[in-house]
Amino acid sequence: MADRIIAKPLDSKAFGAFGDVIEAEGSPDRLINAGLCGRFHDRARLDFGDGRAGLSLFDAEARHWPLRVDLVERHPEGSQAFMPVSGARMIVVVAEDDGGKPVNYQAFVSQPGQVVNLLRNVWHGVLAPLGERGQFAVLDRIGAGANLEEYPLTPPLWVDPAEGL
Amino acid sequence: MADRIIAKPLDSKAFGAFGDVIEAEGSPDRLINAGLCGRFHDRARLDFGDGRAGLSLFDAEARHWPLRVDLVERHPEGSQAFMPVSGARMIVVVAEDDGGKPVNYQAFVSQPGQVVNLLRNVWHGVLAPLGERGQFAVLDRIGAGANLEEYPLTPPLWVDPAEGL
Repeated sequence: MADRIIAKPLDSKAFGAFGDVIEAEGSPDRLINAGLCGRFHDRARLDFGDGRAGLSLFDAEARHWPLRVDLVERHPEGSQAFMPVSGARMIVVVAEDDGGKPVNYQAFVSQPGQVVNLLRNVWHGVLAPLGERGQFAVLDRIGAGANLEEYPLTPPLWVDPAEGL
Repeated sequence: MADRIIAKPLDSKAFGAFGDVIEAEGSPDRLINAGLCGRFHDRARLDFGDGRAGLSLFDAEARHWPLRVDLVERHPEGSQAFMPVSGARMIVVVAEDDGGKPVNYQAFVSQPGQVVNLLRNVWHGVLAPLGERGQFAVLDRIGAGANLEEYPLTPPLWVDPAEGL
């Protein structure tokens, strides 16, 4: 496993295997409010398993380049969406799974306003607002039972930005 | 009915009968990610009735003072949460219900970063970003059947800002 990867701009196509990127791109699905508002409708693969949806707020400290990742985690019981309400960008680290082990790490950097919804059971780094403290509305599963699996990385993974990020 | 009201700063206590205001105020319910992130946990009275939760994105044109309100609406089948992902403030107009008729209008102005969750069946004005175009992640019910009741206001209601807003 490479211990150093390059973060790319977040893009719904490249991210599709891991989750959804929700943003006002292209034409809205419908116009509402006498044409004054575009609705991009039902854009996330939400999944709360046997639990229910809950809306929380995360207030996370700033992270900086290079990002040190010494832990990834996943939520076996549901999806988790991050909505940046303070304008911060996020560094999003994800990995594929190989029999319970995260492999093939990738990193992305969001633009302000981009919402990220991680699919159930996708390995990911913890919330990492880039360069500034950030607040995020978080939509995830509320319910009984453990919904967190952690995987420590020894040695850690380091993430550098692609040029221009 | 007064045809002119004054908008006040949005405040969870004053707004409580109509919905939830979710923000990083006070101490978080728990610290996660090795203490680097505070979680304000499960802060909205979400309600999707016989439907399911859906995450959409609204892109709405700027509104200005005085705000003209010629229509209010309500969603009889579920709650609706607005998460400002572009930094815009919102003018939030709500009313009590008296046998199917909106009465006792109130208006509020959010601060950047404040999330608003309207309870099921609460009369409200349409999404109104203040002074700039705004994008909002919206969490509401996806399901069969009509989930919209509209009430036109003739003459319109006008909303002015409290001093300092």
